[in-house]
Amino acid sequence: MNAFNVNAADRDTLQNMQQELQQQFDALKSAGLNLDLTRGKPGSEQLDLSDKMDGILNGIYKSESGIDTRNYGGLDGLPEAKALFSAALNSQPENILIGGNSSLTLMYQTMLFAHLFGLDGPGTAWKDEKDVKFLCPVPGYDRHFSICEELGITMIPVAMDDNGPVMDDVEAMIKADPAIKGMWCVPRFSNPTGVTYSDETVDRIAQLGNISSDNFRVFWDNAYALHILENNAPVLAAISAACAKHGTENSVIEFGSTSKITFAGAGLAYMSASTSNLKAMKKHLGISSIGPDKVNQLRHVNFFTDFAGLKSHMDKHAAILKPRFDIVLNILNEYFSDNDALTWATPKGGYFVSVDTQPGLAKRVVALAGELNVKLTPAGAPFPYGKDPSDSNIRIAPSFPSVEEIEKAMQAFVVCVKLASVEKALK
Amino acid sequence: MNAFNVNAADRDTLQNMQQELQQQFDALKSAGLNLDLTRGKPGSEQLDLSDKMDGILNGIYKSESGIDTRNYGGLDGLPEAKALFSAALNSQPENILIGGNSSLTLMYQTMLFAHLFGLDGPGTAWKDEKDVKFLCPVPGYDRHFSICEELGITMIPVAMDDNGPVMDDVEAMIKADPAIKGMWCVPRFSNPTGVTYSDETVDRIAQLGNISSDNFRVFWDNAYALHILENNAPVLAAISAACAKHGTENSVIEFGSTSKITFAGAGLAYMSASTSNLKAMKKHLGISSIGPDKVNQLRHVNFFTDFAGLKSHMDKHAAILKPRFDIVLNILNEYFSDNDALTWATPKGGYFVSVDTQPGLAKRVVALAGELNVKLTPAGAPFPYGKDPSDSNIRIAPSFPSVEEIEKAMQAFVVCVKLASVEKALK
Repeated sequence: MNAFNVNAADRDTLQNMQQELQQQFDALKSAGLNLDLTRGKPGSEQLDLSDKMDGILNGIYKSESGIDTRNYGGLDGLPEAKALFSAALNSQPENILIGGNSSLTLMYQTMLFAHLFGLDGPGTAWKDEKDVKFLCPVPGYDRHFSICEELGITMIPVAMDDNGPVMDDVEAMIKADPAIKGMWCVPRFSNPTGVTYSDETVDRIAQLGNISSDNFRVFWDNAYALHILENNAPVLAAISAACAKHGTENSVIEFGSTSKITFAGAGLAYMSASTSNLKAMKKHLGISSIGPDKVNQLRHVNFFTDFAGLKSHMDKHAAILKPRFDIVLNILNEYFSDNDALTWATPKGGYFVSVDTQPGLAKRVVALAGELNVKLTPAGAPFPYGKDPSDSNIRIAPSFPSVEEIEKAMQAFVVCVKLASVEKALK
Repeated sequence: MNAFNVNAADRDTLQNMQQELQQQFDALKSAGLNLDLTRGKPGSEQLDLSDKMDGILNGIYKSESGIDTRNYGGLDGLPEAKALFSAALNSQPENILIGGNSSLTLMYQTMLFAHLFGLDGPGTAWKDEKDVKFLCPVPGYDRHFSICEELGITMIPVAMDDNGPVMDDVEAMIKADPAIKGMWCVPRFSNPTGVTYSDETVDRIAQLGNISSDNFRVFWDNAYALHILENNAPVLAAISAACAKHGTENSVIEFGSTSKITFAGAGLAYMSASTSNLKAMKKHLGISSIGPDKVNQLRHVNFFTDFAGLKSHMDKHAAILKPRFDIVLNILNEYFSDNDALTWATPKGGYFVSVDTQPGLAKRVVALAGELNVKLTPAGAPFPYGKDPSDSNIRIAPSFPSVEEIEKAMQAFVVCVKLASVEKALK
């Protein structure tokens, strides 16, 4: 059964394979599955890790720095929170702004302010340009792309390899087209491929501000900065240090959140940026906000105490997540390591396993899985405008279901991939 | 000393008065005061009322409706929170959206989406109009005006009387000028005058959508919906019911928050809007946000239990605030009831006492108070573009300082008003 090679099989063999797979598929269909591998959200066991957050203040709402967190004031966050999360972003406290509960919102606001008003002062608003384009390493995060689409920013896909975005391409495109005003990056445990950008890639990205047109910004979404699955996970170089070296401090803005550290939706979002970028952000946030929830910031500071506490908390997440990723990877290995029906990377962190079918099969696999009530992220979602040109990428998110559910879902997934592959070979 | 009538005094008397006041002023100057009547923020005694918020979940993060508040999901808030705050806004739960920690942010987002994308679908964005104007009842809230200014919306001041905005003027302006796309309102205990709009005014505002041009929106900032100082405070008619009666449900959007109910900055913001307006909001919030902090919503639900609990909590605020307002009003009465140097309204709720000097004196009074280290809100702040045409309005915010501090600050204020008045009479 494990020998699965549609290329080597003749038509009779393929028809036999199809028949057998169809039987398995029908059996799964009547099994009444109800499984979901779509969303990169924490499981309840992970959320339990932070249950002490409520009540952690013990009635003391004043920060060590003397701020009554219950009242107005402080547009950019508590000093204690800045110190803690500057370590998480490999930055400096004076470069940190702590926002609300959503780094997506911070990214949206940053892009909005760049679009409407310009981060470099009067005359630098992107909306006044004839055309604004963003480079989008693919596959990537669909919600980044939705922001660009909403603001009318043209997205240009860029290929990724094991080191991150293909930098020769990135540099050539930026040199050739002054309409390119930025790039999305998820530099560690990239969503969904799991790739961590190499030191050289980080250094080359830090130099883009020197070859780009004006008002260029890399959106460095370090969403999985601390989200390792094992201790030997690759480390990301500090982009802020690289920018300082190359004199491009304004060209990269870094983001992160505790959505997948404490509570998803009740965590903290933060950004690291140059003095000039922070000044622009605070100017416009001062119009649109009374400041972030400082009580929740104090809770986070008390809960972790320091960066060591934060890292040891992440080890507990890893212990819960690792078996979930292992079951996905073990099943992929078992059924597809000896054939080319599916390829994938083995992530050392993050929230996803990204797989590639043979070209033209991703949509079919997702549809077949849907028939089995196994929900997969829509094929194409990790691409600008939802279009995967080779229709091959599928993002698997194993964090939320139980190990047993993941195993069932993956067994069903295997049947769907094989069935779609045989169908194609028979065409 | 109390007889203070610069109009009846001859030049000699005025000069004597000036000399005496200058001595008082100098004495205050050397007293080393450091007082602040600028910001409508709760005092620490008020904040203490909600200290049980932290820990109130007792480790139970699941809502009664079965939602794990610790995880992603739910763009418009917990059903339990919608039910609670629909009562606060005199609306229906299905019309409520619970946002983050700042109603200012909700208002900014609403205006931003109306400006950039249009709340009534494609082709309705304000930015595509030649000109967009907003009516601004004055004096009003400076942060409303800052949003208009940031988005390039032209502000037109409208006078207020004891019933709210002068509706004859409002209606005439809207009929005459299709560029008018909305109006700011703080309908109960208006910031800063304390006026509560009369039933007739509310009903006429609900009819504006029938005489306005398309895409017209009243921003109904019901910031002080529950913030009474005494039980006989005037009641505000329900704008949503009035709009339903006149078929103008899309023309008014209502806002509120618990910033001055629980914690300022760590509370909840909410809005009430028509199905169509909510749909537009959720479409764009879905791009810019992962949803609001549901854990904090659950805390609020648990803390108040129901609307009766919320109202009895507000009585505790009133008991703390009333003596602060009384000292302000008593001192004003003592020194200015028998002359026309100062006029004011007596608020039955809200956060401010709004006073008017003789024309042309507000800036001078604020400057004099500044010399005594008594901080007052900059004159002009409650007017569009910071310009009070008669330079007479001063906003006094007595919530934050202690009763003793308010008394000292008001005694100094009295000297400043008198000194400025005598200076003027001598010119």
